[in-house]
Amino acid sequence: MSKRIAGPEIERLIQLLAKVPGLGPRSARRAALHLIKKKEQLLAPLALAMGEAAEKVRVCSSCGNVDTIDPCAVCADPRRDAATIIVVEDVADLWALERAGTMSARYHVLGGTLSPLDGVGPDDLNIRRLVERVAEGGVTEVILAVNATVEGQTTAHYLTDQLAGFGTRVTRLAHGVPVGGELDYLDEGTLAAALKSRTAF
Amino acid sequence: MSKRIAGPEIERLIQLLAKVPGLGPRSARRAALHLIKKKEQLLAPLALAMGEAAEKVRVCSSCGNVDTIDPCAVCADPRRDAATIIVVEDVADLWALERAGTMSARYHVLGGTLSPLDGVGPDDLNIRRLVERVAEGGVTEVILAVNATVEGQTTAHYLTDQLAGFGTRVTRLAHGVPVGGELDYLDEGTLAAALKSRTAF
Repeated sequence: MSKRIAGPEIERLIQLLAKVPGLGPRSARRAALHLIKKKEQLLAPLALAMGEAAEKVRVCSSCGNVDTIDPCAVCADPRRDAATIIVVEDVADLWALERAGTMSARYHVLGGTLSPLDGVGPDDLNIRRLVERVAEGGVTEVILAVNATVEGQTTAHYLTDQLAGFGTRVTRLAHGVPVGGELDYLDEGTLAAALKSRTAF
Repeated sequence: MSKRIAGPEIERLIQLLAKVPGLGPRSARRAALHLIKKKEQLLAPLALAMGEAAEKVRVCSSCGNVDTIDPCAVCADPRRDAATIIVVEDVADLWALERAGTMSARYHVLGGTLSPLDGVGPDDLNIRRLVERVAEGGVTEVILAVNATVEGQTTAHYLTDQLAGFGTRVTRLAHGVPVGGELDYLDEGTLAAALKSRTAF
């Protein structure tokens, strides 16, 4: 039986909500109902916020970050150290590093990693613009903050080759024991790296 | 450090998404980023769907269901049995029963349960309209499909009292073993009820 129990507008809302990461078909129904019940406090403001974001958000032409202005707030901030560029795979990584909040540098968002098997080559990533930024001068260090995966490391090697010859230092994040982590639960690779890069106490 | 890393529109989107049930502060960020990346396919359509729902959704003046028309599609459907009213606590319960799809009856949504401790009395629920619907005649059975909680059962008893004298049969859902359920994991109350209401094999 497929009787119509709610208007097509509600059905469509549920269908679209189910595509949001973190929500499935079941939680989308629950979310839709909650939103409908909180029409004035939540549904209408959220519709407005989404509309505004959809209209205003753009990709920064310099670093690939997303923001409502171009260049983005990070690139436009004069207090940030323009001599250091932290290269990340995704905007989510940029946000994570900003939450850590230890460096006031610029960023460069690649938009993914090199992955020949998935057909992702250098031209599919935001690499040319990174080389341009370094070639323009004034950059003394490029920190490759890519994930410690095979694709991430492949990308890091490729970038190191591309950035050679500009006299810019290319560094990568340290491997080691996560803060608060227990040795017992760590893999051998991490432990070996942590031992190798041990520091004076 | 609280440097501005994204426009206020994006911050506001994350804040509002974090209030959606099923999403927290962390998953709201992930959801916002996903929505921004899928601007054309997901963010803009979702903004539109939410705007439409916020504008059009209303509470059915007859049964308390939510729909874009009033009376709602369930009340307006002439193929449904108007002599049977299934009373539920919430619209979510109405949707759940419709998914089960076994009865083609009308509904009545209470909007909660009686709960003196929380200050919810009969006037805070959609009870008067239910009594009116029964008093108008033509209703032969009222099925109390409230939750099997203390508040649900208290509400059921109150409704039974209110509906006495109209010559309408008042029934409740059967207690018993859930389909696919294992006896070993069931509580004593359910098992006792299932034994008491045993049926011929």
